[in-house]
Amino acid sequence: MNSFDHRKYTPFAPIPMAKRRWPDQQIKQAPRWCSVDLRDGNQALIEPMNPKQKLALFKLLVDVGFKEIEVGFPAASQTDFDFVRQIIEQGLIPEDVTIQVLTQSREALIKRSFEALKGCRQAIMHLYNSTSTVQREQVFAKSKNEIKAIAVQGAQWVKQQAAQQPDTQWTFQYSPESFTGTELDYAVEVCDAVNAVWQPTKENPVIINLPATVEVATPNIYADQIEWMGDHIQHREAVVISLHTHNDRGCGVAAAELGVMAGADRVEGTLLGNGERTGNMDIVTMAMNLYSQGINPELDLSNMDKIIQTVTECTQLPLHPRHPYAGELVFTAFSGSHQDAIKKCLQRYQPGDHWDVAYLPIDPADLGRNYQEVIRINSQSGKGGIAYILEQDYGLQMPRWLQVDFSQYVQQYAEEESAEVSPASIYKIFEQSYIARKQPIELEAYQISRQQEQDQLSATITIDGQSTLINSSGQGVMEAFIGALNKQLGYNMVLVDYSEHTLGDNERSEAISYIQLNIENQRYCGVGKSKDIIEASLEAVLSAVNCAIPALKADVIPA
Amino acid sequence: MNSFDHRKYTPFAPIPMAKRRWPDQQIKQAPRWCSVDLRDGNQALIEPMNPKQKLALFKLLVDVGFKEIEVGFPAASQTDFDFVRQIIEQGLIPEDVTIQVLTQSREALIKRSFEALKGCRQAIMHLYNSTSTVQREQVFAKSKNEIKAIAVQGAQWVKQQAAQQPDTQWTFQYSPESFTGTELDYAVEVCDAVNAVWQPTKENPVIINLPATVEVATPNIYADQIEWMGDHIQHREAVVISLHTHNDRGCGVAAAELGVMAGADRVEGTLLGNGERTGNMDIVTMAMNLYSQGINPELDLSNMDKIIQTVTECTQLPLHPRHPYAGELVFTAFSGSHQDAIKKCLQRYQPGDHWDVAYLPIDPADLGRNYQEVIRINSQSGKGGIAYILEQDYGLQMPRWLQVDFSQYVQQYAEEESAEVSPASIYKIFEQSYIARKQPIELEAYQISRQQEQDQLSATITIDGQSTLINSSGQGVMEAFIGALNKQLGYNMVLVDYSEHTLGDNERSEAISYIQLNIENQRYCGVGKSKDIIEASLEAVLSAVNCAIPALKADVIPA
Repeated sequence: MNSFDHRKYTPFAPIPMAKRRWPDQQIKQAPRWCSVDLRDGNQALIEPMNPKQKLALFKLLVDVGFKEIEVGFPAASQTDFDFVRQIIEQGLIPEDVTIQVLTQSREALIKRSFEALKGCRQAIMHLYNSTSTVQREQVFAKSKNEIKAIAVQGAQWVKQQAAQQPDTQWTFQYSPESFTGTELDYAVEVCDAVNAVWQPTKENPVIINLPATVEVATPNIYADQIEWMGDHIQHREAVVISLHTHNDRGCGVAAAELGVMAGADRVEGTLLGNGERTGNMDIVTMAMNLYSQGINPELDLSNMDKIIQTVTECTQLPLHPRHPYAGELVFTAFSGSHQDAIKKCLQRYQPGDHWDVAYLPIDPADLGRNYQEVIRINSQSGKGGIAYILEQDYGLQMPRWLQVDFSQYVQQYAEEESAEVSPASIYKIFEQSYIARKQPIELEAYQISRQQEQDQLSATITIDGQSTLINSSGQGVMEAFIGALNKQLGYNMVLVDYSEHTLGDNERSEAISYIQLNIENQRYCGVGKSKDIIEASLEAVLSAVNCAIPALKADVIPA
Repeated sequence: MNSFDHRKYTPFAPIPMAKRRWPDQQIKQAPRWCSVDLRDGNQALIEPMNPKQKLALFKLLVDVGFKEIEVGFPAASQTDFDFVRQIIEQGLIPEDVTIQVLTQSREALIKRSFEALKGCRQAIMHLYNSTSTVQREQVFAKSKNEIKAIAVQGAQWVKQQAAQQPDTQWTFQYSPESFTGTELDYAVEVCDAVNAVWQPTKENPVIINLPATVEVATPNIYADQIEWMGDHIQHREAVVISLHTHNDRGCGVAAAELGVMAGADRVEGTLLGNGERTGNMDIVTMAMNLYSQGINPELDLSNMDKIIQTVTECTQLPLHPRHPYAGELVFTAFSGSHQDAIKKCLQRYQPGDHWDVAYLPIDPADLGRNYQEVIRINSQSGKGGIAYILEQDYGLQMPRWLQVDFSQYVQQYAEEESAEVSPASIYKIFEQSYIARKQPIELEAYQISRQQEQDQLSATITIDGQSTLINSSGQGVMEAFIGALNKQLGYNMVLVDYSEHTLGDNERSEAISYIQLNIENQRYCGVGKSKDIIEASLEAVLSAVNCAIPALKADVIPA
């Protein structure tokens, strides 16, 4: 059964480089970013995104600051076609954003792709065909010249179609797909042949995208390939060299970084690295890597919780707790010596100083994370003991983030009282800290109607005693309620985590709901309790909001 | 609130390299591996491992083929101390395996570390102290000479203690912790000073471990640092240069690979990359990267499901579906053109050929994965439709892997009948394919007793009609039952995935249980149904085993 045998694999041949320059380079500015979340990311999902998810993700990409967004493969998918039409016809593409669509090199598909883009102000038409040895020989059974002819013919069709839609400002992009498995001299021959058709100029350049469709070698080899291509392609000044790496060997980010050092101008990738197999290059990681070196990433990743929430909802894939910059554990120091070093550095750190803190490559506050989370989470603060007591004696199954949050209230009480804290006192502190937190906002009544997977909610709340009607809709009652509160309070509030359980073993038992919200870039916890599971959840939201309000400017709340 | 501002960070200064050699190197053989799962991995867990988990992980590391294993920080943790004593006193360390323990440079801790290793045949004593600028200036407030003196004093204590335990064959290891944040000339000065105490020879070398405690720059910089150190350290022939990278910038594997090209001999890391913050370097990925280039990884990773199961159980951290080589989606092609290319390549592939298949860097079968999983999982095979019908009409919530498995039975039926398949027929096929699969093994009766978190199970099963009593214990009933079957059948059987739900809405409803087992490196699915939730689960196990038996050699089953 066991076929584990390395001998059936051959090593990737090194690139002969007379004099390589990239190892002496440093990245000094962010590349042009292109998000392929809605195309390469989408095509790799167990359940591809529905139109609503596509739109939510598109809006996020715009908010984050992407100026180039590959929005689909409209000739291959009616959903993609409809989505492209929707964002064009509804005017959802900001003026400074250029959308991009992918097409194979077939006449009908190219025509259909141009049809999808009718009326678009500016767009990138992205043509590809496979050029690697294995694709030529095994998949297509065609010669080098025949494969090159496919690319050239496609370039001609693209040029002809573009001429018929002159009101759109076109950029052409070509990818020799499976570039990393293609002989370099052949890859450059094909790219030059395509450019001979498109005739790019310095003022109106083409994009030549060089995908590591499959990551097949160490990342330095990819950098060699990119430097080689930049040195050998004709009219380099009229060509934007673009990278598109995958993560099969776990080095997709490294390959893109070394590729930029090797002279690339542009990088394609996805938020948090969704994409075929092991994923596309993660733009969040690469952009934050630049950020941590004092380079403007040209993307605003400060609302990381919003990014995580939207991406995980749209992809239905989890975020790993150790995912660079974004995972829940990545700023956490568990060992005592690490915690001690961080504390000492933070005590010396003054706002305005250059950041230099042991074990923390960036300031977690930049991404809306608390220091408390960083240095206390597994400390000997008694968090575990507190949670154990509340579970044993009161049936509470607190999520970990709530344990962390709650331990500070208990510690504060213990310090004030200078005495041991009894289980009954702990529970009382818990009730007072969260469940009883009903000011300034209190829930009075609510109505919910659900139709076509959409909840319409209206709720009566009192704010400082004054009754107010709020309403909104959403895919679920939580989304609707949070949306209604955002509208009323003018907040930017995002659901981070949520859980609920019953406190007994029959249907008449009370339910308890735990919630963590990110409100204006800070995390707040709330708890609600009720015989009704919906009420418990809405109370939990308000418990968190009521915690946030004193911390934020009081005047944003209309009385 | 928003402190997202890149200007508070300073770029990492490049390493002046007159002539760098590493970009011209290729890795031709596996480095010496050292697992730090039980130390660096363990100290980064929300709940550190208990003794039982430590032992399970240690056994896995031995089985996988590690010859050097850092087993703990015994002077800092009683659990670690006890664990080291246990594996020594119980003779659990194979002759060709060397254990390693970490110690800070303090006399009491060093003495205690040697005490932990009493009676050990051979061991690596791993001494460290922090040498980076930020640690010297902000954490310890000590000069360069004072910090160097800590290292030298520690080296002396280690040498003295070792002399008092001459029956152990000692290797000394020193880490300038936070090496990547240390000035190179100072790092080499400290290492040379330590070596001046230890007096290594070519025959009895020391290990100098150069940790990227925090990943602070692009991976080429780490390679520069390693090459520089190799060129400047004294007595290079008596020094084993070891790497220890973390993944803060998502490039921990890349840094280790480039570091080996730069001349390192040894690599520390963890299985699947557990470890502080973003994790340690993932040895599974790096070893499989070597494997995919035709290099013997010197580790047996063929039973990947066992590795995943043990690591996720011990760390209580999930495996991401896109984790290189190990995640459930990494060999899956969703797009039609990828599927088509893979099929064409596989049709041509003959056992014994060099592997060259589009979109698949390695043969998934090497790690116990099916081709079916690869090319069908999101195909237009009607899997989604089948699952929908069974959920709507029969209340089944099939996990995705079962949907994939089941679709082949329906397809086979459809092809044989050449007709549309009704919902009732689909359900009948489902029952026949899984639930009714009660030969050759059938469950008759069982007894379970639970004490001290341990289940003792004995069960009467019939094998080909003959009644047999089997028994085993485990942390749960599933573990006990699978253990008992493994004992009886002589199989190597591992639980891959499991779920269960009721088929109605009250406590008298039937439960249905879905299970996926890896049996002798192949995955099999099973389903069980019963009014009793335990029986449903055990029946599901047997359903999978009964599927496997005809596929495996019949003669391994004692009649």
